Amino acid sequence: MMEEDILLQQINFIKEIDKLKYIQRRTKLFDSDRNENDAEHSWHLAMMTIVLAGHADFPVDVLKVLKMVLIHDIVEIDAGDTFIYDTAKSHSNTAEERAAANRIFGLLPEKQAEEFISIWEEFEAGQSNEARFARSMDRLEPLLQNVSNKGGTWKEFGVSYDKVYEKKRVIEEGSKSLWKYAEKLIRESLAKGILKK
Amino acid sequence: MMEEDILLQQINFIKEIDKLKYIQRRTKLFDSDRNENDAEHSWHLAMMTIVLAGHADFPVDVLKVLKMVLIHDIVEIDAGDTFIYDTAKSHSNTAEERAAANRIFGLLPEKQAEEFISIWEEFEAGQSNEARFARSMDRLEPLLQNVSNKGGTWKEFGVSYDKVYEKKRVIEEGSKSLWKYAEKLIRESLAKGILKK
Repeated sequence: MMEEDILLQQINFIKEIDKLKYIQRRTKLFDSDRNENDAEHSWHLAMMTIVLAGHADFPVDVLKVLKMVLIHDIVEIDAGDTFIYDTAKSHSNTAEERAAANRIFGLLPEKQAEEFISIWEEFEAGQSNEARFARSMDRLEPLLQNVSNKGGTWKEFGVSYDKVYEKKRVIEEGSKSLWKYAEKLIRESLAKGILKK
Repeated sequence: MMEEDILLQQINFIKEIDKLKYIQRRTKLFDSDRNENDAEHSWHLAMMTIVLAGHADFPVDVLKVLKMVLIHDIVEIDAGDTFIYDTAKSHSNTAEERAAANRIFGLLPEKQAEEFISIWEEFEAGQSNEARFARSMDRLEPLLQNVSNKGGTWKEFGVSYDKVYEKKRVIEEGSKSLWKYAEKLIRESLAKGILKK
């Protein structure tokens, strides 16, 4: 393909992903009642990655983790945000999300499309060092937000301490020290009555 | 310092930068009348960096470019957004922005604070390969947005073709092929009457 055609495909993708700024999460910004959108969330995870990478329990390729957190929610442009505590719907790697990945990353030149799909799949699988650390970031941000909002979505949707503890435990797979801190926040939330057994 | 204290400083910074989501730019989202905020803008530049890095005219350390675009507007939490076509105010590296950098990055553990301030300074200076490419991204995104919005901020604030051409030319310092594309968009905008001499 001509270099110009490659660029046009890339620009097309860059325009399309603007839609991520309209995908609202359940979680609210810090000390706020304004919902966060997926683009803001992805930026924040990228910043957390740069700041917290030193807490990973194993060597991580920071560039790869950044790519993961920057693109991890792009499928939600088609598939929509799924609330982590939604029991009716499995929240990872549904057929809908796979179709979205193929369509949206498929706007890119072939080689790049393959790379992005593969990075997204690696994140979803959660097995590699980079995916484990990226998923720690993804679980830690809304925990910090909910604590700042005196319960936030936990309160709003009646999520129990046990459920939160179980979901947040994924943080431990990326970093024992971050999990130690997160666990302390969850226990304090129970003590303060923000979370209930 | 204890590892726990280091983490607390980092968490403090992570909370503080949430404020970037409230800093409104003049530019609107693609095909939209909704203003973009700095966090969304920074995420979009990071995505553009990953997608377009191959168009740089020289080798770039992609991780460093990503750090630059992710943090480049954080000083605006204190200093506010400065419109690029504002003639009354110099828009780069004012005393206000420097104080903001010291305060906000200064929340981080000392070594990290130094790294972030140095990356921000390198971006502002615009001399290194990474800074030149990062600045290309920063100029290209609002160009694409204004074209999609039939003039956008150019029309709203009466910015002339010559002024736009002069400001956007910075793209060429990062990538000749991206500038060739950008120049074509600017010339087409003139032909369509979106921009005026």
